[in-house]
Amino acid sequence: MTDYGPIKAALLARPARHSLPQRLYNDDAVFDFDQKAIFHRSWILIGFEVEFAGPGSYQSLKIGGAPILVIRGKDGVLRGFHNTCRHRGAELCAEGAGKAARLVCPYHQWTYDLSGKLIFAGRMGEDFDASAHGLAPIHVETLEGTVYVCLSETPPDFAPYREAVGPMLAPHDFRNARIAHEATLVEKANWKLVMENARECYHCAGRHPELAVTFPIYAKGNFESVSDHEAEFDRRMTELGLPGAPVEDDWWQAARFPLNPGMVSMTMDGARAVSKLMCRTGDGDIGSLRWALEPHSFCHSTGDFTFMFTCIPVSTKETLVLGKWLVHKDAVEGVDYDFGNLVKLWDATNLEDRDLCELNQRGVDSPGYRPGPYSRVAESLVERFTSYYVAKALDYIAEVEAADHAPLAALAAD
Amino acid sequence: MTDYGPIKAALLARPARHSLPQRLYNDDAVFDFDQKAIFHRSWILIGFEVEFAGPGSYQSLKIGGAPILVIRGKDGVLRGFHNTCRHRGAELCAEGAGKAARLVCPYHQWTYDLSGKLIFAGRMGEDFDASAHGLAPIHVETLEGTVYVCLSETPPDFAPYREAVGPMLAPHDFRNARIAHEATLVEKANWKLVMENARECYHCAGRHPELAVTFPIYAKGNFESVSDHEAEFDRRMTELGLPGAPVEDDWWQAARFPLNPGMVSMTMDGARAVSKLMCRTGDGDIGSLRWALEPHSFCHSTGDFTFMFTCIPVSTKETLVLGKWLVHKDAVEGVDYDFGNLVKLWDATNLEDRDLCELNQRGVDSPGYRPGPYSRVAESLVERFTSYYVAKALDYIAEVEAADHAPLAALAAD
Amino acid sequence: MTDYGPIKAALLARPARHSLPQRLYNDDAVFDFDQKAIFHRSWILIGFEVEFAGPGSYQSLKIGGAPILVIRGKDGVLRGFHNTCRHRGAELCAEGAGKAARLVCPYHQWTYDLSGKLIFAGRMGEDFDASAHGLAPIHVETLEGTVYVCLSETPPDFAPYREAVGPMLAPHDFRNARIAHEATLVEKANWKLVMENARECYHCAGRHPELAVTFPIYAKGNFESVSDHEAEFDRRMTELGLPGAPVEDDWWQAARFPLNPGMVSMTMDGARAVSKLMCRTGDGDIGSLRWALEPHSFCHSTGDFTFMFTCIPVSTKETLVLGKWLVHKDAVEGVDYDFGNLVKLWDATNLEDRDLCELNQRGVDSPGYRPGPYSRVAESLVERFTSYYVAKALDYIAEVEAADHAPLAALAAD
Repeated sequence: MTDYGPIKAALLARPARHSLPQRLYNDDAVFDFDQKAIFHRSWILIGFEVEFAGPGSYQSLKIGGAPILVIRGKDGVLRGFHNTCRHRGAELCAEGAGKAARLVCPYHQWTYDLSGKLIFAGRMGEDFDASAHGLAPIHVETLEGTVYVCLSETPPDFAPYREAVGPMLAPHDFRNARIAHEATLVEKANWKLVMENARECYHCAGRHPELAVTFPIYAKGNFESVSDHEAEFDRRMTELGLPGAPVEDDWWQAARFPLNPGMVSMTMDGARAVSKLMCRTGDGDIGSLRWALEPHSFCHSTGDFTFMFTCIPVSTKETLVLGKWLVHKDAVEGVDYDFGNLVKLWDATNLEDRDLCELNQRGVDSPGYRPGPYSRVAESLVERFTSYYVAKALDYIAEVEAADHAPLAALAAD
Repeated sequence: MTDYGPIKAALLARPARHSLPQRLYNDDAVFDFDQKAIFHRSWILIGFEVEFAGPGSYQSLKIGGAPILVIRGKDGVLRGFHNTCRHRGAELCAEGAGKAARLVCPYHQWTYDLSGKLIFAGRMGEDFDASAHGLAPIHVETLEGTVYVCLSETPPDFAPYREAVGPMLAPHDFRNARIAHEATLVEKANWKLVMENARECYHCAGRHPELAVTFPIYAKGNFESVSDHEAEFDRRMTELGLPGAPVEDDWWQAARFPLNPGMVSMTMDGARAVSKLMCRTGDGDIGSLRWALEPHSFCHSTGDFTFMFTCIPVSTKETLVLGKWLVHKDAVEGVDYDFGNLVKLWDATNLEDRDLCELNQRGVDSPGYRPGPYSRVAESLVERFTSYYVAKALDYIAEVEAADHAPLAALAAD
Repeated sequence: MTDYGPIKAALLARPARHSLPQRLYNDDAVFDFDQKAIFHRSWILIGFEVEFAGPGSYQSLKIGGAPILVIRGKDGVLRGFHNTCRHRGAELCAEGAGKAARLVCPYHQWTYDLSGKLIFAGRMGEDFDASAHGLAPIHVETLEGTVYVCLSETPPDFAPYREAVGPMLAPHDFRNARIAHEATLVEKANWKLVMENARECYHCAGRHPELAVTFPIYAKGNFESVSDHEAEFDRRMTELGLPGAPVEDDWWQAARFPLNPGMVSMTMDGARAVSKLMCRTGDGDIGSLRWALEPHSFCHSTGDFTFMFTCIPVSTKETLVLGKWLVHKDAVEGVDYDFGNLVKLWDATNLEDRDLCELNQRGVDSPGYRPGPYSRVAESLVERFTSYYVAKALDYIAEVEAADHAPLAALAAD
């Protein structure tokens, strides 16, 4: 029942291959809209299977502002639930990771088993139907040790992603990895500015001296080969049997690409950071596998480690950036890798990007701001992200408009 | 002129004997609505006559976000006013308690007498009509030493409350009491979640070990007698001539009920906290008189002291809980009572409840939240509160809809 | 596409010569409206030419929430621009003062010359039209060393102000001045309450003991002469050839008026603060030239120094007050003036006013608040300000209503 008219008009008014109209970057109504239209309806990469060690191991986190719970069942299966008791709605598990034999609501001790079934509710009387009050499930998928959730009842099709990207992820052996480091950064910018920043290297020459050492900052969109260096790399990967040719669909993208000549990892000097490799094929010199999901993430997997970047919208002009660094589960800090060396490049890069996103926000708030042109060569992935956003948003408005024939119910649920 | 359509729809969509639809707990428009529809139209217990000692003694506080002033006149009568100068609207008295012979606006020294009449306004010219610029009054009632205000021009009928509850309050002699302690607590939860929490002991077994010592946590709604222990208590109170049989109407409720066997006060161990009694009948062993007002308060009066609980909505997800502890005016700290012992039970209980209310809010914000069923036996007073809220809110919307025939005036005043 | 109906109704409902309806002081929608309707469409005094010393010298600041840039060109001309890159909108210059040979966007190094022309944009391809992506200009005017900006494409006529006030400003020689001090103060009050406070001395007798020493707190509106003291002053100024008779139009006002008998400067004791004078006519004893612009400023220029007061709305209930003190460029601190003595009067006065504005806001938020009557003698300039506000606001609504025939474009740009 919210009036999406102004948002729809702004979406439709966006000039082709330009940044978005102002309202879409700084209107509180758009922030709420984005959570529902985009974050509740996309597959969100939340992390890795190794973060759920054994039955009852769970993570309580927020997706699009919604508190959810992902937990491993007694049968070993990962399941997701809305983190809200079916009695009076209390939060079941505090944010963070934990382990539980059962899920007991701290308020009135309603108790659920690991599959979400209500198994105890005191003083509710004879006619109470416990079976109608199990936890509300959400969709969870896993792929070669990576974990995804989607809050929508009708998620986008996961199968093509599984088929195309699974074989590329497999050699990196995420089921035998561990989290070496997690870091968060709050950026005072709309999440879409954070993502536009994360989708181009047009700013790298001027602003990321550290990254420019190893990263091919003038590479094509999805790292299509054009140079001899790239062709030679592709030949070598084929010999090693490492799949990596660019694949993509509207909400995902993956490709293995060569780092700058002589560089084997994404570190300050391009040398390997971890001596115990995650991918044991190719002796570590396998470029980087970049896999990215709209609307929120990218990962770089070199032979020795993986860096995951996700953005979590907090408010209209506040975005949490969560980074995770994975290494082989047997890699020992101080022996197999130096912690500072492992994290320094992405820490520096993320801090530089925070400054850029924040100045972008400040300028975009100007009444003098007009959508500006993307560079066709240097900002094609920004265009890809923005187009995804506009299409997904318009698609949601169409859904809501179609549903607006049951007005009272919609009003109440909105 | 605000559109109450979505609020009305949510109120009407509430399933019987269930918690409220999400929007009513976390929408900023609903917060503003609640202030007007509920807090500006209900009788609000603000404290006790002893807090206004002599002519000119006043309290400046907020009711439903509105700054008001309650002040004792030269004639000894308590009066209430909007705390805003009739010149350019400056706040007359800073929040808190004070004493004044006249009310002088700090801005331009407009001066009012204690009955609100404007008695001085400099440089306003010959044709200025001072008599048209007295302070705007609000309704005040007192009952056996307790004090109530209502901001509405047409308050709910106070007479039935006076008649039924007055005789129950009288033996506790509030006019000879004093405030031994005041404490405030900010809870990051909607005020209705705070009140739902305050209206049930379903959570007491699991979360209030201190309270469970003395309080009959499995008692019926308004403490109707069902056990031998209760019947015996009722007989004894009748012998003592202490009225206490349950009485109630839509916005108030009172009953005297027995504490757990062997307990005479609401303290950590059930022993009397204050040797100098407030109620001199029955040697202190008189159970507790619980008197509660919708939408915001409850009090427990044992023989030795009274604890008052009120909730003050601050913002959509922020509620101030104000507690006052009263003892007999001659009770001396360190002699007649130990301060820590007096306040410990309710301090502990309130802190525990804060945590519960906050986790309730976090969970209720989930898009997976759905109104859940109240226990008929353990949550009947929650149902009473929620039903009061829904009825009062719908009643206000009906009033506004009826008034919407003078559109320009309504727009301006809104 | 925003609905200005409630704002328009409130503007129309204002009783003549009364303060404004509540909504206009505390509604977030009105805050946004005021920025667009008032601050983006008025001439705003931002300071003095001496703050821009030489080509490339700039100030980055906010007008009505909009980040702008005022910069001196190679040709010595001051120009204004929206401080947002035409690529993806990043802020070009951080807030504050600086000096630059070119304006280089920190994000992707798009580069503009000092006249706003885009002179470099990397990797944009052959068909990119740089000439279509120059900085968006805003209007700038200077007058005898003072500097003004207006964000509107059709600013109010500056010529009458130039003609009438220019000769009054000239003797104060602002081009040979320097900023001796800048101070900011955040007041928790709507900007209109801050301005109403700044437009009357009705509160001076009671609240500004320091100011009352030198300032004629009972003077008429625009300091029209009525007493012998004033007539004598006027005669003396005429002899000195110092223009000062009251002049005004809807958005500006100026007059030279005598300080209290025996006083020559606006200081704590009325004695001159700076021995090296700004105005060399009359040996410093020339009263004060007050020049004030609606909606946001006033200045007092005595023979020895100038104090400038401007208010900058930050949010609905938050206003930044910026003060600047100017002295002759050759006046040396510790030799020609004592710093504490120079700033003490206005520092004290501004702090006192902050308290008054904040208590005004608290009281105006009361549902008991009603627009109150202005004193005809003591608050005529408040009435002038408020009438300006109402007229300018209604004028903007009429413009928007007239433009609402191209609905889609309006929606997107809004």
